[in-house]
Amino acid sequence: MRQAGRYLPEYMAVRNKVTFIELCKRPELAAEVTLTARERLGVDAAILFADLLPILEPMGLDLEYLKGEGPVIHNPLLTPSHIDRFHEVEDVGCLDYVFAAVKLIRKQLPANIPLLGFAGAPFTLASYAIEGGGSKNYAKTKTWMYTDSGAWQALMETLARSLIRYLRAQIDAGCQAVQIFDSWAGCLSPDDYREYVLPYTRMVIEGLPADVPVINFLTGNPALLALQRQAGGQIMGVDWRVNLRDAWSTFGHDVAIQGNLDPVTLYADLPTIRKRAKAVLDAAEGRPGHIFNLGHGVFPDLKPENVIGLVEMVHEMGQKK
Amino acid sequence: MRQAGRYLPEYMAVRNKVTFIELCKRPELAAEVTLTARERLGVDAAILFADLLPILEPMGLDLEYLKGEGPVIHNPLLTPSHIDRFHEVEDVGCLDYVFAAVKLIRKQLPANIPLLGFAGAPFTLASYAIEGGGSKNYAKTKTWMYTDSGAWQALMETLARSLIRYLRAQIDAGCQAVQIFDSWAGCLSPDDYREYVLPYTRMVIEGLPADVPVINFLTGNPALLALQRQAGGQIMGVDWRVNLRDAWSTFGHDVAIQGNLDPVTLYADLPTIRKRAKAVLDAAEGRPGHIFNLGHGVFPDLKPENVIGLVEMVHEMGQKK
Repeated sequence: MRQAGRYLPEYMAVRNKVTFIELCKRPELAAEVTLTARERLGVDAAILFADLLPILEPMGLDLEYLKGEGPVIHNPLLTPSHIDRFHEVEDVGCLDYVFAAVKLIRKQLPANIPLLGFAGAPFTLASYAIEGGGSKNYAKTKTWMYTDSGAWQALMETLARSLIRYLRAQIDAGCQAVQIFDSWAGCLSPDDYREYVLPYTRMVIEGLPADVPVINFLTGNPALLALQRQAGGQIMGVDWRVNLRDAWSTFGHDVAIQGNLDPVTLYADLPTIRKRAKAVLDAAEGRPGHIFNLGHGVFPDLKPENVIGLVEMVHEMGQKK
Repeated sequence: MRQAGRYLPEYMAVRNKVTFIELCKRPELAAEVTLTARERLGVDAAILFADLLPILEPMGLDLEYLKGEGPVIHNPLLTPSHIDRFHEVEDVGCLDYVFAAVKLIRKQLPANIPLLGFAGAPFTLASYAIEGGGSKNYAKTKTWMYTDSGAWQALMETLARSLIRYLRAQIDAGCQAVQIFDSWAGCLSPDDYREYVLPYTRMVIEGLPADVPVINFLTGNPALLALQRQAGGQIMGVDWRVNLRDAWSTFGHDVAIQGNLDPVTLYADLPTIRKRAKAVLDAAEGRPGHIFNLGHGVFPDLKPENVIGLVEMVHEMGQKK
């Protein structure tokens, strides 16, 4: 589960003392919130507390997290001519705080609980770099993509090579699996995804050790499922917009799926949560290749007891199968 | 094309003199911007200038368009208990300004140019009514839907019956076809759409005269295509997230499709626009049942010459087939 713990009082207590970026950059605090969330929720894996965007800092972008508004990049790559000031991460030493957190977490985590590392997919990071923050239409990103394919390729390859080093270092530090988030690729048509995005996500996945499971998560467009599979990964992360039965029939049955309860479900009462969690398990038809998860991140204003209740229900219903 | 003319200097000149809601409510001005946009662009049909939301006013909601922020409802239906203050439109006389505009436009429009009326689909209007404006996660809407199916049914049926009267009156006033916009339904899973939305969209479409073409437009989730078709309509409106070939194979070939160029394309240069418009026409394989359109609304900051150029290109390339 992403954003693990942002709705927990334990997280908020830590967060009140430091800024968001400080929390990302102080390994002992990042480790603390990762471990606390895992324990409190009782989930079967821990996901590193980190953010998608700090990798853009050593690449030349000036990143700030504004209170209540989320991330802002003060010098975005507004046009293809700005590619010259975007630098590949040759040495991941500048991101050592992430790997230090991984080591601390791995040391304290029970041996039977895997630790997941993660990173943004090249397209999602490219969109942030170009738009300078969140976007509704991705107009600048797409216009660049449509009109200067050379600069687009350079941008995406620079990101892909940097991401390979970043994820390899997370694995070397102790992560048992990694998740790649293409949170924004759903704004693309299948033809655009195939041409402008798929080769670079594939480059990242192929650049990782073959024996480390990769979760390839893409949200926002079920028409991309077949291409998401082509991009690679042993586990496909999907959102709630698609039924798991249909997803499996598109992916084929030789791949695992992680998903896909609509996170809004967690605002409802426990009986409703149970009914809807059961529908996800039923759609997975008890396949061993199903990793139950939300279809997207947890909202920060959710009641912790609902999230904890969901984990208990899934454990209980899953055992019955 | 929706939002016709919002990027034209002629529209802006009218808009500078009145507020947005005044423009909607003054038939001679609504007619003027509708006709000007049609003429300037050279498109094969005119779409009534109006807005999705004013129908909510006679239903009991206090609607305001804030400058730069879009529509806000000051007394949203925050919980199912608020259903009591939501009223069915029994007499569409309170929306006479819309039908007066239709009559004025039809009088001045060339006889061979159809006039399209339109309305929001029940789900999209319900979301506005509950969220009080735009939303990122539709959390309040979904929570209502998941937890109080009785009040949800009452809400959706109240909307559906009101919409039937509203669209029938547009047709009586002179519209040759109507378009139903489910702009927000893409946030739903197929199971949720089937249970909570499809019956009410179908109710609206079945409540209209069988000889008037209905364009059923849904955006944001290609996994809903098969259900969109079940909801009805002779023409399926689709966004750019799906390839037209795949859409047709899901819909079947006994239905027409309207779509689906990504509107961001219009920020690019004319040769890029041409290439991408051709790809849409190629995917439609010259079928007579294809109505070329954008996959969503036109952005207000687009260059008019690009939109006009696109219309010319499509006319020219379409004739070659």
